Amino acid sequence: MTPRTEPNIGIVHLVGAGPGDPDLLTMRAVRLLQTADVVVYDRLISSEIMALVPNGTAKIFAGKASGDHHLRQDEINELLVRLARPGRIVVRLKGGDPYIFGRGREEAEALVACGVACEVVPGVTAASGCAASLGIPLTHRGTASGVRFVTGHCQGSRDLDHDWASLADPDTTLVVYMGLANIGRFLDELVAAGLPAETPVAAISNGTTKRQRICVGTLDDIGTRIAGARLDAPMITVIGRVVDLADALVCASEEAAEANCDDETRRRDAGA
Amino acid sequence: MTPRTEPNIGIVHLVGAGPGDPDLLTMRAVRLLQTADVVVYDRLISSEIMALVPNGTAKIFAGKASGDHHLRQDEINELLVRLARPGRIVVRLKGGDPYIFGRGREEAEALVACGVACEVVPGVTAASGCAASLGIPLTHRGTASGVRFVTGHCQGSRDLDHDWASLADPDTTLVVYMGLANIGRFLDELVAAGLPAETPVAAISNGTTKRQRICVGTLDDIGTRIAGARLDAPMITVIGRVVDLADALVCASEEAAEANCDDETRRRDAGA
Repeated sequence: MTPRTEPNIGIVHLVGAGPGDPDLLTMRAVRLLQTADVVVYDRLISSEIMALVPNGTAKIFAGKASGDHHLRQDEINELLVRLARPGRIVVRLKGGDPYIFGRGREEAEALVACGVACEVVPGVTAASGCAASLGIPLTHRGTASGVRFVTGHCQGSRDLDHDWASLADPDTTLVVYMGLANIGRFLDELVAAGLPAETPVAAISNGTTKRQRICVGTLDDIGTRIAGARLDAPMITVIGRVVDLADALVCASEEAAEANCDDETRRRDAGA
Repeated sequence: MTPRTEPNIGIVHLVGAGPGDPDLLTMRAVRLLQTADVVVYDRLISSEIMALVPNGTAKIFAGKASGDHHLRQDEINELLVRLARPGRIVVRLKGGDPYIFGRGREEAEALVACGVACEVVPGVTAASGCAASLGIPLTHRGTASGVRFVTGHCQGSRDLDHDWASLADPDTTLVVYMGLANIGRFLDELVAAGLPAETPVAAISNGTTKRQRICVGTLDDIGTRIAGARLDAPMITVIGRVVDLADALVCASEEAAEANCDDETRRRDAGA
């Protein structure tokens, strides 16, 4: 978006925070975090990343602490305009890349419409970060000729709306962003559209952070595994033959941790 | 890939260098560049990024200076193993993200097979960087429900091998990596498969660097524009309705530069 700077009109940098690991922030993101007057963030931003923001900088959580209620998109837009107008440097931190399922464009349009300058700083998208942490290439000669990102999130009351026949392509790696709530339905649709039930799948929760947890399975059983392991959001799901290339040792150690976690859950449930 | 460290056996970090702008390197990439014993790079790595490598560090260009001949993949694999074995820290810099059309997995497998430890550091993929530089969101509510990355490069003597009907989806943003050589054929196939000829397209050459040049048009005319402007590799092509959201001022200034360049070319050609 074109910066339309006027005297005493600030700027909002829409900054991709990457998948979670602060080491995967870009140089530009780190520099902006260190010079911003105020940082606006949401629940997708890891605490490790927020720890890089200097103590004296205002930090605003764009969501409410109680329950799962968040600011509506129009409320966030208004907040950004209000913060920038007195001439402040505002960093709006968004998980991954602001222009891949980040609603970044909606914020950019609202800002420019109000005469506030806006700059987009791309980031490492969650698919890249999560896949690399398991050793999974998103494309690989002879295994996946391309990669495709879709969302598992429904818009308002609308149902999941995808061309399932097109998504059920064994030669393309499919990555589902924000898929936790609808994962069962999503996988069923892919199988119904013809993707083999034994297609390998990896689900990664809180990828690249210290809280990363994974489940590896197939289209057929990953839903049960995710529920059993109680993975939580944010979650990325990688579907396709490349998942068979996942690092065996990473998966084994994560699965051992998962088994321990299951034991703990059982003990807790038994004691409750 | 699992590090299998043995005494005096080094490590190769397969590092994503991002789209070209050194500011879009990750913190981890910069730290590795500053501590490596040797950096192996190819022609996709911008000179601005190589300028960050300390003077005392060995830099090896994985390609030959004369003509367009590059080391074959197996020669690069052998080089990495030979460099790492005496216990060196090797950074193998790859454009964008090593696991999106980077052949990173092939190098990782070769290294691990030879007992050399290997770590993958994800990067900002070229699509994110190039799109952001033009203000183009890769996904946007109501305009693009997902995004898809494919290659325009042919493997050896094989022809372009895509499911064109599936690619010709007006609701998905399509990004073609390394498409310069076959762009005409690629666009023709999309139109033949039913994607409207007036679908907007942006081609970005040397994206996010000082040498960035762009062409904006439609499926119908972008091939002619790219040829007229003599865009060179590396080139990323973004196809889909989101291209209509490209920042008008960026495009106008780039097109003015392009017109000047055309004038210069004409003068040069006339004088030759």
